[in-house]
Amino acid sequence: MTIFSRIINGELPCYKIAEDDRHFAFLDINPASRGHVLVIPKQETDYIFDLDDELLKSLITFAKPIAKAMDRALKPIRTGIMVEGLEVPHAHIHLIPLYTAGQYFSLGKKVKLSKAEMEETAQLIRSELS
Amino acid sequence: MTIFSRIINGELPCYKIAEDDRHFAFLDINPASRGHVLVIPKQETDYIFDLDDELLKSLITFAKPIAKAMDRALKPIRTGIMVEGLEVPHAHIHLIPLYTAGQYFSLGKKVKLSKAEMEETAQLIRSELS
Repeated sequence: MTIFSRIINGELPCYKIAEDDRHFAFLDINPASRGHVLVIPKQETDYIFDLDDELLKSLITFAKPIAKAMDRALKPIRTGIMVEGLEVPHAHIHLIPLYTAGQYFSLGKKVKLSKAEMEETAQLIRSELS
Repeated sequence: MTIFSRIINGELPCYKIAEDDRHFAFLDINPASRGHVLVIPKQETDYIFDLDDELLKSLITFAKPIAKAMDRALKPIRTGIMVEGLEVPHAHIHLIPLYTAGQYFSLGKKVKLSKAEMEETAQLIRSELS
């Protein structure tokens, strides 16, 4: 079982953002910028392009209102997308708020947020989703 | 008209990979790695999350077989996805072959390929698509 499945199951804690029957979203615990969200299918599939078309499509349309909520809640220039997927063998879309023009984002650059800041950020995003 | 629309129209040259009625794909002229492809909707919309759900879904399923063709043609570990979109106001998905584990990719890092290498790379990908 992947670490992401353990988060979905509630075995491991997370700053949850959204969930439906097939998808789950939560804050990346090592964010590339404030409000960095991971969007995953509940199904364990390593490589995003091995998802069947239906799940790939529903995953991106599940991500879209979350990105829009991030935009309203956190006021970045916009929210970017990244998928590398080499660290956890469970497909995941990174939604990363881009706060600075001309700053290339990278999963190699991280910001440090306190637990209180993480919880506040998650609540801000959730409040814009509901 | 965006520079991407001029490429679609044939006003500007490109190393074309694939096209259908609503989508277009071509090599990024400043690749982050060999075989870096841009996948775009023909419709000019600046922000990817402003695409309607139907076009967002068809864009990602148009990209999927291209990524699989890149995997077969170029043998990276896998193909990653990036969307930043701050440079050209026409939504585009970067498909970037990841050749090295643990190497974070970034649009700020570029590789230099000759015209002959670009054309050969495009042909390799196209041959796996057909």
